[in-house]
Order: sequence, then C-alpha cells, then structure tokens
Amino acid sequence: MTDQEGSRSVTAALVVIGEEILSGRTSDENIAYIAAYLTRIGISLREVRVVADLEAEIVAAVNELRPRFSYVFTTGGIGPTHDDVTTDAIAKAFQVDVVVDPEAVAAMRQHFSEKELTPARLRMARIPQGAKLIDNAISRAPGFMLGNVIVMAGVPRIMQVMLDAVTPRLAKGRPMLTRSVRIDVAEGDAAPGLAELQSAHPEVQIGSYPFFENKRLGTYVVLRSTDAAKLATALDALWALIHRAGFHAAAAEGE
Amino acid sequence: MTDQEGSRSVTAALVVIGEEILSGRTSDENIAYIAAYLTRIGISLREVRVVADLEAEIVAAVNELRPRFSYVFTTGGIGPTHDDVTTDAIAKAFQVDVVVDPEAVAAMRQHFSEKELTPARLRMARIPQGAKLIDNAISRAPGFMLGNVIVMAGVPRIMQVMLDAVTPRLAKGRPMLTRSVRIDVAEGDAAPGLAELQSAHPEVQIGSYPFFENKRLGTYVVLRSTDAAKLATALDALWALIHRAGFHAAAAEGE
Repeated sequence: MTDQEGSRSVTAALVVIGEEILSGRTSDENIAYIAAYLTRIGISLREVRVVADLEAEIVAAVNELRPRFSYVFTTGGIGPTHDDVTTDAIAKAFQVDVVVDPEAVAAMRQHFSEKELTPARLRMARIPQGAKLIDNAISRAPGFMLGNVIVMAGVPRIMQVMLDAVTPRLAKGRPMLTRSVRIDVAEGDAAPGLAELQSAHPEVQIGSYPFFENKRLGTYVVLRSTDAAKLATALDALWALIHRAGFHAAAAEGE
Repeated sequence: MTDQEGSRSVTAALVVIGEEILSGRTSDENIAYIAAYLTRIGISLREVRVVADLEAEIVAAVNELRPRFSYVFTTGGIGPTHDDVTTDAIAKAFQVDVVVDPEAVAAMRQHFSEKELTPARLRMARIPQGAKLIDNAISRAPGFMLGNVIVMAGVPRIMQVMLDAVTPRLAKGRPMLTRSVRIDVAEGDAAPGLAELQSAHPEVQIGSYPFFENKRLGTYVVLRSTDAAKLATALDALWALIHRAGFHAAAAEGE
C-alpha cells in the first residue's frame, strides 16, 4: 500500500523478552493485545521477535529493529531479579549509562515502604540515562522510553497500563480500516476470484483465512486499507464477485 | 549452559508468517504449542519471529536464522490463495526453483476429487526443488523440509499433525529438565537469594516469574538443566535458601 496524502505511515516492531515463552512454560498474551491495540490507534505492527533473557540477544534485536520502524516496543525483563536484564541491554544498545533515577524512586515510594525498598527492588529504578519514564499505575516501578524504544513490563496487566500511559506521546498514522466477509466455500474455491480482486485493487490488502465450522469449510476475507474510499470500492467488487460466483456469504464482524 | 558429554545442543527458531497475527485479528496459538513440544523432545527454541506475508520479509528472516540454529520452523502461508507466498519465499531463500511435485499431487488426490483439484488448489502441490514432503494427515496438502527449514501450515490442527510427522526425522538433544518451586513472597524479596543461587550454579538456568493470586504476590522459581545431577544440586540449594530465609514454599508442577 502507498501512503495517502496527509497521512504518515507509523510502524512498529515488538520484542518479547522471555525464556518462559521460548520454553513453553508461559503462553504469551502480550503479542495479541499489543497487535490489536496498535492497529486501533493507527500504528502498524510489522514484526515481532521473541528472544531469551540474554543481554546480547536483546541488544542485537533492538539495534536491528530501531532504524527500520517508527517505534520498537519491548515487554519483559525489567523486574527485580537476576534474570531481568532488559534495562542494561537497552542502555548498551544506545551506549549510555544506567542511573538510579530519583523520579523512579519517588514513584516507587508511593507503592513500597522504606523497608521494602531493598537494593533488589531499587534495581527497578535503574533507568538508562536520557530515558523518559512511563508511569505504572499498578506497582509503580516504571517503564521507560529511550529514543524510539518503549520498554514495558512483561506482566500483562502492568504492560497494559504502561501502554495506555505512553500512547499520548506517540505519533499515529491513519488507522487501518477493515471489512470482513465470511464466504461459505473452501479457500481453494474462493482463491481465483480473490487473486483477481487483489490485482485489481493493489492498494487494499486482501487477506484470506480458512475456517472449519459445523463440519464445513469456509473462508474469511479481510480487506484492509487506511483509505475509506478505496476500501469501499474493493468491498463492492468483492460482493460483485461473490454474486457472480453464486457463493453464500455474509458481512462479518470487524477484524 | 555448557554441553554435556554425549549430548548435542539442538536448537531451533520459529518464523510465524501471518499478517493476521500482526494486525491482531487472530491470536497466535502455534508459538506456545511449538515451544512446549520442542522443549519436550529435546530441541531448544531460541528465537521466534512473526513477519507479514511478504516474500522479502520471509526470505530475510529465514536466511538470517538458518545458519544460526539447527532448525528453522515456519508456520503459515502455504494455502491456495494469493496471499500464500511462503513456498516461493523459501525457494528464493535457497535459490532453487518451485516445481509441481507428483508425490504432493498424489497425496492431495486422497482428499480432493479431480474436479476439486483446481489450479488454485494445485498451488499447494508446488514445492521447492529438493525439498522432502511432510505428510498432512488432515487435508493432505503437504508441508516440506528443505535443508534445515521445516515449512508447516498455519492452521493449528494441521500444523500439529505436520510437526508429529516430521519429528522422527529431527536430531534431538538431551531434553531440558525442569523443577519449579512456588515461593509465597514477592519477587523483590526473593531476588537477592536467587541471584546468589544463579552465581553458584551457572550451569543451571534459574528463572523467576511473579504471580498475583488471592490478592497476594508470589514467585515461581524455575530451574532448568539438561543435567539431572546438577539440577538436583541446585534444587537442594534452593530449598536450603528458602529454609534459611523462612519463606513459605512448595514444589510446583513441572514447567
């Protein structure tokens, strides 16, 4: 798709940091949440990587992704334990020092007593120099944004409040608009028409997703564009194609 | 961790191909399934990437990952529609041609009638030259293995039968052994002891995962090693630490 006048294309990558995802111990919930959230606010998620809690891996992923996308989000590895190495990795990626941030300590005092503010917990106030804090309304130990990299917790409900907190600071493009149609034929039967439709409407992205329900195969067709007029034209063409082919079909819920 | 005598370290990366995951339309189920499956059979998943259905992105990811890991698994993009570009991308990555494979056509004849074997469906019999087919017991259109790259469907139940079908062909390392302990204190309070434990047992990987249950914080500690004796020694040391600190704790289920 090409950019439309007056809009910018704002893109993102996500780096999920966590041995527990790679070992299958934990099923990640953050990818799906962040993908849907960014799509809704007009930021296009283009790539996700899951890497282990190893400094070198995180540095490599972040440094490869940050020149390629408007934003790089990370989740995980900013807690108080020895396997939380994300903060140091991000500092290393940007070649800056890590400092105990007075504002982060002050935020943590709202949640922890002086006795609870142990050296281990104060690790969570260590922030790469020059980073801006991201508020954590739940347990106060903050995330941060350094350059175009946004560092968030891995615990889903804490990640979610951090994402809300950072959203006002982010550039947004035109939100992606989508229309979905459910066709009651197998993907292989819908394929030739959909290929023609995609050729005729190169600026609308046309996705095809098979499903199996009540022992019958069907196909969800999803049209995506930031341009409402082009999307409407492609949708009309899809309905015409469905009519010509004699398929049973119905408009489906958003994305 | 170091390799043990008589064992090899067998590693893998996974490339999930699908715009629908990046847009948040579909919540991926394959990462968690494949992560747990590979861990169980002694293959260590080290990295996951989610990329769009774009040939250049797939080629770049596969060519970057295949020299670094024993195996690269892919899911998605081998169906009959225009947005299924994985087969061509893999062929391009290996610089080989794509051919209509007679064995793949024969397999598909078990599932599709001659009338159903349309040009669109026969796209699913297009296989990069030199690849070995992977049986699909459900809908017969096969996956394939080329070099160390294993190409599977994106539909979870079809991916799962392909993974079963290819497993006997794969090298396996010693399976990762794990022991989990649930400690009823916040991660910040467990942190100093766990850091010491990790320093004293560098060949056992010690992960710490906070949880929140019945309004109380707790910490799952997971010890991982391919060496049963080293794992047992580290587990003993963890119990001694828990005892000294006076924490409440209990052995937890596997991983």
